Amino acid sequence: MPRGRSVRGWCSKCSSWTIFVLDTVAAGVETELARFFAAARLRASDYGEHYVALWDSLEQASSGGKRVRPALVLAAYAGFGGRDQALVSPVAVSFELLHTAFLIHDDVIDHDLARRGVANIAGRFTDRALAHGASADQAGVWAAAAAILAGDLALSEAHRALAKLPLDVPTRLRLVDLLDRAVFVSAAGELADVTNSSAGHPLTMAEVIATLENKTAVYSFEAPLQAGAVLAGASAEAIRLLGQYGRLVGVAFQLTDDLLGVFGDPVKTGKSVTADLREGKQTALIAHAGGTESWSLIAPYLGKVDLSEEDAERAREHLRACGAKAAAEGLAYDHSRLAVETLSPAVIPANLRATLIELAEAAVNRAR
Amino acid sequence: MPRGRSVRGWCSKCSSWTIFVLDTVAAGVETELARFFAAARLRASDYGEHYVALWDSLEQASSGGKRVRPALVLAAYAGFGGRDQALVSPVAVSFELLHTAFLIHDDVIDHDLARRGVANIAGRFTDRALAHGASADQAGVWAAAAAILAGDLALSEAHRALAKLPLDVPTRLRLVDLLDRAVFVSAAGELADVTNSSAGHPLTMAEVIATLENKTAVYSFEAPLQAGAVLAGASAEAIRLLGQYGRLVGVAFQLTDDLLGVFGDPVKTGKSVTADLREGKQTALIAHAGGTESWSLIAPYLGKVDLSEEDAERAREHLRACGAKAAAEGLAYDHSRLAVETLSPAVIPANLRATLIELAEAAVNRAR
Repeated sequence: MPRGRSVRGWCSKCSSWTIFVLDTVAAGVETELARFFAAARLRASDYGEHYVALWDSLEQASSGGKRVRPALVLAAYAGFGGRDQALVSPVAVSFELLHTAFLIHDDVIDHDLARRGVANIAGRFTDRALAHGASADQAGVWAAAAAILAGDLALSEAHRALAKLPLDVPTRLRLVDLLDRAVFVSAAGELADVTNSSAGHPLTMAEVIATLENKTAVYSFEAPLQAGAVLAGASAEAIRLLGQYGRLVGVAFQLTDDLLGVFGDPVKTGKSVTADLREGKQTALIAHAGGTESWSLIAPYLGKVDLSEEDAERAREHLRACGAKAAAEGLAYDHSRLAVETLSPAVIPANLRATLIELAEAAVNRAR
Repeated sequence: MPRGRSVRGWCSKCSSWTIFVLDTVAAGVETELARFFAAARLRASDYGEHYVALWDSLEQASSGGKRVRPALVLAAYAGFGGRDQALVSPVAVSFELLHTAFLIHDDVIDHDLARRGVANIAGRFTDRALAHGASADQAGVWAAAAAILAGDLALSEAHRALAKLPLDVPTRLRLVDLLDRAVFVSAAGELADVTNSSAGHPLTMAEVIATLENKTAVYSFEAPLQAGAVLAGASAEAIRLLGQYGRLVGVAFQLTDDLLGVFGDPVKTGKSVTADLREGKQTALIAHAGGTESWSLIAPYLGKVDLSEEDAERAREHLRACGAKAAAEGLAYDHSRLAVETLSPAVIPANLRATLIELAEAAVNRAR
């Protein structure tokens, strides 16, 4: 890894935390991804235009994100003295493609046709099928097939990126086990999330937090940080602490995300503030409200398909009044604070520690 | 690998080719799979009963097959002098779990709720959801989620099984590239298959054969044989020939399968002889018929949802009369014969060659 500062801090341009890496290193990840997709597209051209379109869609699905997971891999690797960019880039790419695979399969499960405001793989293939004269039913089947296959291809490459590294067997196994655990725990979290969404009653706070942790925090924060540290040869204690930190900060991040999904400023966050209510999403806000006397006032708005702006505003007032907003904010801050407390100065190098403290603060202090 | 014969020949009991391995070696694959599922189930118990049920369903999905792919890995490995069972078993397991992952995701794509005559993962989770009081819609979403996740878990373990092997980097890369190519080509084949199924006109014979080859022959025959040979240190020429052989014999096998799906004896094959016609499946039979004057007589039966036994028998008569049956049989035999011709005695060891010749014959001479 090149010399120089590995932290740039809070990004004032996009009001988010797209940081923690030197430009040249982040560029290494982009190069690695671009090279992979270019080669795949070339290979795909032997199998017809639809398969090329599938790879185009997959590349598009993997772009446009904030590269949070690569940034965490790189930060932990550099933080523990790692300097070999050719070694760390494929690990960073692996976690980014794992993320891509999960997003794609999540969208299939949720029957979503758009992501980040643009058509996702299923959306693009639905349009493509209709343009070729397919019926709506045929288009739906074809689009779901394309998205399931694209997710499989991304997941497969997430593994292959690790397999090609020149590592000793114990290090390789530890990395692969981190990836494997990420898949294992995320699948459990996703299954719970789908189960919860049709529970018909508010979940407990513990259930909400376990789902956030399993579905997102482990693969997005815990595993990438640990992978970077393992690759740099960090101590077992350091890896353990990074794991704890990652899970806590991941939950803080997700709790804040759910707050912004109801109380944020859509112009600043790019997130709708009615979609979660309309869908009846089981968040910490709802878990808290479910245990208060205001529940009967709030429940009618949740999952209301034709929820108006006025309805949403009334639901927000009730969620404020019953203390749900304050409780969710408090929980997010608690997780962020606990995350920082895990970062023992005796174990975590000062530069990395500073970066991770910044990250923990950024997780709860985001654009509203 | 223990001493003794590595070939047992055609199985007169089940009239199929569940052969080509020493009992003790095949048992090694079963042990490896059983150990993996037992460990996964234990880990899953931390995440609730539904996740344990998901792993139970995944184990069930991976059982009941003929272990064709492990048998091919083991045959090629032993054939080129490989003797380390602890090394080859995970490779055999890897290809079996790849197969499991593909079957599971295929069923999601096709909206099937059963496989091999019993409820598949989606079928089991549909029943489970309904028993928990879910609506039919909720049950469908939940079941599809379970099946998509189960396929992801199987695919991930297919990779992990290779990652944990103590191999030098070049051998590891060659194995991983075989697995990767299998995923890549199968995804192309599956996409083409779904595309073809709504083409609205008969495909050309070349399109039918390319789809069989890509969707099934590469991952089921070519890649497992090559993986076993790579692991045993076979020559580049031997690996190339095994690949050619595998693709050809895989197509012969699939062509025969499609023949049995219309002209077989359901009692002997366990396959319906009306389902393919009812579904309008694009087989070599249909590709041939599409180019004959009988097409207008045959077309009305294809994709007929309420196809009766009498309809099916009439369709069969037309397919015989127009030469489609003979043409598909001829093609299957040609592929089998060409497969055998690739097995140069100067390159492929005699024992393995005998096994593979038997396999090529068994592919086209199966229980009717």
